[in-house]
Amino acid sequence: MIPAKNRRTLNVAVIGASVADETTAQLAYDVGAGIAKEGWTLICGGLGGVMEHASKGAFDAGGDTVGILPGYEHSDANNSIKLAIPTGLGHARNAIIASSANGIIAVGGEYGTLSEIALGLKMGKKVIGLSLNFEIKGVLPARTAEEAISILKGYIA
Amino acid sequence: MIPAKNRRTLNVAVIGASVADETTAQLAYDVGAGIAKEGWTLICGGLGGVMEHASKGAFDAGGDTVGILPGYEHSDANNSIKLAIPTGLGHARNAIIASSANGIIAVGGEYGTLSEIALGLKMGKKVIGLSLNFEIKGVLPARTAEEAISILKGYIA
Amino acid sequence: MIPAKNRRTLNVAVIGASVADETTAQLAYDVGAGIAKEGWTLICGGLGGVMEHASKGAFDAGGDTVGILPGYEHSDANNSIKLAIPTGLGHARNAIIASSANGIIAVGGEYGTLSEIALGLKMGKKVIGLSLNFEIKGVLPARTAEEAISILKGYIA
Amino acid sequence: MIPAKNRRTLNVAVIGASVADETTAQLAYDVGAGIAKEGWTLICGGLGGVMEHASKGAFDAGGDTVGILPGYEHSDANNSIKLAIPTGLGHARNAIIASSANGIIAVGGEYGTLSEIALGLKMGKKVIGLSLNFEIKGVLPARTAEEAISILKGYIA
Repeated sequence: MIPAKNRRTLNVAVIGASVADETTAQLAYDVGAGIAKEGWTLICGGLGGVMEHASKGAFDAGGDTVGILPGYEHSDANNSIKLAIPTGLGHARNAIIASSANGIIAVGGEYGTLSEIALGLKMGKKVIGLSLNFEIKGVLPARTAEEAISILKGYIA
Repeated sequence: MIPAKNRRTLNVAVIGASVADETTAQLAYDVGAGIAKEGWTLICGGLGGVMEHASKGAFDAGGDTVGILPGYEHSDANNSIKLAIPTGLGHARNAIIASSANGIIAVGGEYGTLSEIALGLKMGKKVIGLSLNFEIKGVLPARTAEEAISILKGYIA
Repeated sequence: MIPAKNRRTLNVAVIGASVADETTAQLAYDVGAGIAKEGWTLICGGLGGVMEHASKGAFDAGGDTVGILPGYEHSDANNSIKLAIPTGLGHARNAIIASSANGIIAVGGEYGTLSEIALGLKMGKKVIGLSLNFEIKGVLPARTAEEAISILKGYIA
Repeated sequence: MIPAKNRRTLNVAVIGASVADETTAQLAYDVGAGIAKEGWTLICGGLGGVMEHASKGAFDAGGDTVGILPGYEHSDANNSIKLAIPTGLGHARNAIIASSANGIIAVGGEYGTLSEIALGLKMGKKVIGLSLNFEIKGVLPARTAEEAISILKGYIA
């Protein structure tokens, strides 16, 4: 018999801006792939940029991908989202991304990402930072996708 | 190549009260099993009663189950939820259950369920009713779990 | 010294459809006026139809009016809203209208209104119904604006 | 006739931690008083610390005070809140504080405050910072309550 706790997925949120340069895109892709390889479910905002590249990384590695969308259309989800959760909550959906995650990896990002980092830390989640544009006390910095996964593994696995 | 639309799951929400008598529990279980057999993903509020029995039906049939929880604890999810989405939104999470669904099946239920039916209809979703305690114009009535699935299939498959 | 509890307003939500025929508009206006005359603060969804006529009734009677808006623009509020609360929450803002009210008066209305009635009852609020299009157990029916105010007064004053 | 735009209040959110040392408490009080003196409506999270002291400052100066509460109880509001808006949204209510504000003044604060700053900036609101514990690009720094009001006045009056 599978114990109850093993039935449930471990959810890792990847947060970051909806546009990404080539380096950030690759980083997001690698983070997504790493999440899938751990058997974790990738949660994100479901749209473009970092969200899309991370989703594609997880999808290509055979992982599960969830998009917590700000609007009402399932079809707003990027092409690598398997489970679309349109919330209609606008920016308040950022709080759901944080609350549904067991751990969070931030890749670059602007104000939206910063709000998710802050909400995650407020909720007591571990937040790993990659190429962040802000310095926030409490965020655990990583230099590579591999290191980000490795740090998170120490806390949630 | 798999077309984009086929990558995404079809989500069917099962809504109903957090306590269920034996008949309602069986009905919810059968609805959940039917959803899984169609290859749809079951969405629910993640707690007990109708939510739990429907989740178990889907889980036992090998389906995917998602619990959109009102609180902040992943562990609030019933034992058959694979993906827990703790929202912390309280009653407002009912709107997310409705918005994330491609179709909705209501089994029995009280005021919480009624709010989800109303929100679903407002959002233009098809809502199938089984053993409802209210009569709401626009809800498509079904007499059995099988019939509920069959009606919904005509709209969302 | 004013006791703490008297510093806070009593909030009465008026809920109803965003279009209103002449009879319903007058009814909503009278309900709004009655709320203001009791010294209660009128809460509503801030948009047109029943919301607008009730707001105007309260505004004209010198009362305070609050619009809990689904979008992000203060200017979406109708012309009689003094305090606009743009939430960006879409349909989920219905839950905030219910939760922020000490009592609720429903005037006519469709699915959106039904969702607010159900959420209000779920939260244990008194809900008075005027010219409702549905019959919902637990709603206290009134025939006139005056009677609606009078019933509510028995519970929240 | 009063033009429509003048019927509506200008809302200024004061955000900050739920505990405050004496210096921060005084600063918050002065900010609240300044907001009331401008005829603006004070919006806050409705609880203790910076929220309470700012509310008291505004209340004592005869201003209007609104508390956007995370829970469901009107009575959770501090003693200087006139209009309590219990949302039941938990941390997601931070997004409503930001969206309902025409301008934001942050006083000290921790992660919750940081999330509101980030959400406010994301929504394009002016955010003034007093004694902040973080340095966030885009926040307009002020050294005194008076200066904070004065800067904001340049944008929203």
